[in-house]
Amino acid sequence: MRTVNVALAERSYPIRIGRGLLASADLLVPSLKTSRAAIVTNEVVAPLHLATLRDSLKAAGVSLTEIVLPDGEAHKDWPTLNLIFDGLLGARCERSTTLIALGGGVIGDMTGFAAATYQRGVPFIQIPTTLLSLVDSSVGGKTAINHPLGKNMIGAFYQPRLVLADIDTLQTLPEQELKAGLAEVIKYGFIRDLPFLEWLEANLDALLARDPAALAYAVERSCINKAEVVAADETEQGERALLNLGHTFGHAIEAGLGFGVWLHGEAVAAGTVMAAELSARLGMLSSADVTRVRRILERAGLPSVGPRLGADRYIELMRHDKKVEAGRLRLILLQQVGQGIIYDSASLEDIAAAIDSCCA
Amino acid sequence: MRTVNVALAERSYPIRIGRGLLASADLLVPSLKTSRAAIVTNEVVAPLHLATLRDSLKAAGVSLTEIVLPDGEAHKDWPTLNLIFDGLLGARCERSTTLIALGGGVIGDMTGFAAATYQRGVPFIQIPTTLLSLVDSSVGGKTAINHPLGKNMIGAFYQPRLVLADIDTLQTLPEQELKAGLAEVIKYGFIRDLPFLEWLEANLDALLARDPAALAYAVERSCINKAEVVAADETEQGERALLNLGHTFGHAIEAGLGFGVWLHGEAVAAGTVMAAELSARLGMLSSADVTRVRRILERAGLPSVGPRLGADRYIELMRHDKKVEAGRLRLILLQQVGQGIIYDSASLEDIAAAIDSCCA
Ligand SMILES: NC(=O)c1ccc[n+]([C@@H]2O[C@H](COP(=O)([O-])OP(=O)(O)OC[C@H]3O[C@@H](n4cnc5c(N)ncnc54)[C@H](O)[C@@H]3O)[C@@H](O)[C@H]2O)c1
Ligand SMILES: NC(=O)c1ccc[n+]([C@@H]2O[C@H](COP(=O)([O-])OP(=O)(O)OC[C@H]3O[C@@H](n4cnc5c(N)ncnc54)[C@H](O)[C@@H]3O)[C@@H](O)[C@H]2O)c1
Ligand SMILES: [Zn+2]
Ligand SMILES: [Zn+2]
Repeated sequence: MRTVNVALAERSYPIRIGRGLLASADLLVPSLKTSRAAIVTNEVVAPLHLATLRDSLKAAGVSLTEIVLPDGEAHKDWPTLNLIFDGLLGARCERSTTLIALGGGVIGDMTGFAAATYQRGVPFIQIPTTLLSLVDSSVGGKTAINHPLGKNMIGAFYQPRLVLADIDTLQTLPEQELKAGLAEVIKYGFIRDLPFLEWLEANLDALLARDPAALAYAVERSCINKAEVVAADETEQGERALLNLGHTFGHAIEAGLGFGVWLHGEAVAAGTVMAAELSARLGMLSSADVTRVRRILERAGLPSVGPRLGADRYIELMRHDKKVEAGRLRLILLQQVGQGIIYDSASLEDIAAAIDSCCA
Repeated sequence: MRTVNVALAERSYPIRIGRGLLASADLLVPSLKTSRAAIVTNEVVAPLHLATLRDSLKAAGVSLTEIVLPDGEAHKDWPTLNLIFDGLLGARCERSTTLIALGGGVIGDMTGFAAATYQRGVPFIQIPTTLLSLVDSSVGGKTAINHPLGKNMIGAFYQPRLVLADIDTLQTLPEQELKAGLAEVIKYGFIRDLPFLEWLEANLDALLARDPAALAYAVERSCINKAEVVAADETEQGERALLNLGHTFGHAIEAGLGFGVWLHGEAVAAGTVMAAELSARLGMLSSADVTRVRRILERAGLPSVGPRLGADRYIELMRHDKKVEAGRLRLILLQQVGQGIIYDSASLEDIAAAIDSCCA
């Protein structure tokens, strides 16, 4: 088992990474506040992984409430969040009851927000079961639900007491979700960790084959990278923006096609190639560098070209993204492969040309 | 103008107490994060006080969004909270937009919760306009909405940047609401501030006549008392429980009659007399002390006897109150007039007898 410590001003917590952790109640029980817990999961994950977790916790004497939500981003909303509150109140869960999220980023974000607000805050443990949630939402303490007028508009910063990253859960993840998660993993290599990028280039096949040791290492390096960035910049003013590599272009793809048509990670992959292309136009990358960026994403089964929405439409949608400041497009580019940079003086012509050169 | 500083671990803020503060944009503007703010109020308060605040802020160059909610505790719920989010998102309010609550405890609690969760937290300023909210919700950072299965079950701790206590707003408050607020004011005297109790005994008529200087002093002493208690015990384990004098008995009255039949402060008043009666039975107070407790509450126009629900029913309802621990009734009693005590070994017989002696 590997451990990454997330060191944050208010509160630090460990991410335990390994195999068979769902069945290891001894890892989880010391982080409960009392012997009472509520597991929140969804209809897809419950049949696959709930029994393992339930059995080990029950054997350890934990009294459990189980709350099974409908699946999907479309349910990351208030009525579904309220099902958590209904379940907690119906079972008379107390302020000391620990909430355990078992699922992907949607379950993690909603359960975290429920934990932040149930009786003004109860203990929270996260068990992410998608690659994306393992490498992204497990660090940073962001929780939220969507509002019809915007994604993640209602939420809180709330840190878990423990993250249990059971690599075995990834064996049941749909292929396309695994690949989408890899887009965020590779991103850490691009923006700040060249040795990790090289390791990924050498071990991508093992990751795609879901080799547990390779997955565990990739999750560990990703969490370390995110934790370092977040710790250096908790308030999201500076370096943390680097985590948005590919995201502003990707946001235009998601919004332009309608959210859910492409997976987030797929849009980020194509967006990353656009960012690399623009970096080359601005003299920061060579064309060999751009090819390198494109190649690893393609090997991971991710799209390296975006849909042909037209550069004007892309730019219009990018302007609506919240990372826009004072009318200027503030983009994350690559100064080198392995080093991201916040850049806000690219001309609209260069941006449009980079987009056009990366659309199918 | 008087100022009480609320010193809390995470964040301190001032309560400015005085007259004409709604019209004094210069007091408020320095606490805004940008020149953009959203005022949240309700249909009763808006016609009385919104124009004064709006005009002064507009004259100071603040760009305003106004959100007017339906009135009443029945609307302290998710659909109404969502009207705040609708308004903020519809007006494209940003993470730097300051939310200003203008109203009683319902508006304060809901707006505070909206501020805690809109885009994971935006700046918050509170302008309480009821006596209860001035002396109680303005200190402590509790925000919440109700759930059908419980009051204040969903919320957050979230501190305002500033509380503006404009005593003039109390001139329009219904008589019954003023008196209900006095129950909480007098409570501070009973549990920890004998000199303040003596002042209240001497100045109750001035308060009932809404003399601004008397009201300002009572608000100041109340806020100081609550701030001291909260600062000494932010996590609600010890001394803070003293603030619940009369509340467990009062809760039984509110729940037994159905919430809203008696005002909260009215139930607290009758509950306080029961607590005093029980304290006398346990040898802590003299019968003259009990008379003194009863007398000031009666002079404030508050009930000193509870409805005849039967002592068994009272005790059953008190057991359901969340302050119950391990089956024992943990009550706040008076060791002396001016000194509250947490007491958990009163016999059910004594509790029942105290209740019976205080029911109409
Ligand atoms: N909090 C953060 O910092 C953060 C960071 C990134 C993304 N997010 C949020 O995360 C969400 C996306 O997360 P996601 O990609 O995990 O989506 P998701 O939670 O919807 O999971 C994707 C799909 O995989 C299923 N699934 C989950 N685990 C499985 C398993 N082990 N086996 C089989 N199927 C499984 C899910 O039920 C779902 O159908 C978004 O709402 C996003 O806003 C949050
Ligand atoms: N956050 C805390 O620490 C805390 C503490 C105590 C109570 N509370 C909450 O506060 C709420 C009760 O507060 P409340 O007693 O202020 O009730 P309230 O907000 O419902 O106000 C009472 C009535 O007076 C009206 N009103 C308000 N200001 C007025 C004015 N200046 N002139 C005329 N009418 C006015 C209101 O619209 C309402 O009809 C409860 O929901 C309770 O849970 C919170
Ligand atoms: Zn992402
Ligand atoms: Zn009260």
